[in-house]
Amino acid sequence: MRADIHLIPSSPLPRGISERSVVVIDILRATSVIVRALSQGVLEIIPVATVEEAFEMAKRCPPDTTFLGGERGSRKIEGFDLGNSPGEYGTERVNGKRLILTTTNGTKAFHSVSAGRVIMAGSFFNMGAIARHCLDLGRDLLVYPSGDMGRFSLEDTVCGGMLIDRILKEGKEPVALTDAGQSALLLYRRFKENPVEALRLSTHGSDLIKRGFEEDLSYCARVDITGIVPIFRNGVIRIGEGI
Amino acid sequence: MRADIHLIPSSPLPRGISERSVVVIDILRATSVIVRALSQGVLEIIPVATVEEAFEMAKRCPPDTTFLGGERGSRKIEGFDLGNSPGEYGTERVNGKRLILTTTNGTKAFHSVSAGRVIMAGSFFNMGAIARHCLDLGRDLLVYPSGDMGRFSLEDTVCGGMLIDRILKEGKEPVALTDAGQSALLLYRRFKENPVEALRLSTHGSDLIKRGFEEDLSYCARVDITGIVPIFRNGVIRIGEGI
Repeated sequence: MRADIHLIPSSPLPRGISERSVVVIDILRATSVIVRALSQGVLEIIPVATVEEAFEMAKRCPPDTTFLGGERGSRKIEGFDLGNSPGEYGTERVNGKRLILTTTNGTKAFHSVSAGRVIMAGSFFNMGAIARHCLDLGRDLLVYPSGDMGRFSLEDTVCGGMLIDRILKEGKEPVALTDAGQSALLLYRRFKENPVEALRLSTHGSDLIKRGFEEDLSYCARVDITGIVPIFRNGVIRIGEGI
Repeated sequence: MRADIHLIPSSPLPRGISERSVVVIDILRATSVIVRALSQGVLEIIPVATVEEAFEMAKRCPPDTTFLGGERGSRKIEGFDLGNSPGEYGTERVNGKRLILTTTNGTKAFHSVSAGRVIMAGSFFNMGAIARHCLDLGRDLLVYPSGDMGRFSLEDTVCGGMLIDRILKEGKEPVALTDAGQSALLLYRRFKENPVEALRLSTHGSDLIKRGFEEDLSYCARVDITGIVPIFRNGVIRIGEGI
């Protein structure tokens, strides 16, 4: 097994992605929202790239069981039901419903890697479950940090490094690392005693603090609080069956 | 001042490069060769992308003062005078001459950043001199690791992190880091007691070891052995005047 990480979203995808497991990570905050919402009973999530697409999609879904979530400029979008803080997605609000989600980086990322063999949503919340499922699949892994407007992001890379660390520790077979995979692992180990420090140090994390979302950083840094593995397939994210 | 590093050569260049200082790094081994050759008396270096261009360029230069250096598949090219090990470039062989150089990654890198305001060649050999010159220039910095066939390379990133570390320590004004700059700094600090360890761990470093060039790794990891600052301008690399 080989573990690689695509450090910069705007760089060309590596070859052979159609044979790989892909884990999309947008710790602040799209994949944290996705994992939290599904763990609280959302039935399916439709990630879309633009606000217009979100409203269009909502028109085609039953209104009583569909709601809109996401952000632009970190804030809730006008006419939407919820923003992009995972804490908002409690079971009383979301259970049994369909979420149409659009965020600046994360929701686009799923469409960028749609050629992947198996596409998962990873966060600190479900790190152990994602690592075990990657090991069960046994395929080469591409971690896909959503980044920050096409650029490298520290917080997603550190979370990707944690996934690689888990796979190295729990796997029974040798795992080969690319230089990028090795670097993500080393960056994660620098922060492993306190992952929230990486979130605070990151450009996007400090922007969120300035905009009043400081609580989201410690919320998103909680590790292994759920065992679900969200799978993106045919444009929709659902909890993987039989995982 | 702002310090950034372009982690992946195949990703799009950031905006505003024409106002920035750019430091090209190909530790294994093009910029190590460039710094060593100039420190041993080479008058100018013409970096070219292909072997054909190297032979064409040589035809247009006086044969008694021109020689060819570089590699393909890490090895000396047929018909060339020298390979890509900096140790080969001693004063007895190179003093007073013009070097036409072509390597797999490094020589292309200079042409990729030719829009930069000031373009320097950096290596461990001249790290202190490069840091001081970047501080004297006072412009925003883009470190440009040459990478490995368009991909991220650990060894160049660690060397770029050392440059950022020096600039932070020696500068009198605050330096803002991008997430990529911050990550390179953290990766460098992981290896700062023993930079050659990063070279050994890297994909390209282990390939060089397999191909019989192990000595080049410790050779290239020597820090601050010369004070020269090579500048790339109009297609030619020379020692910067008055630096």
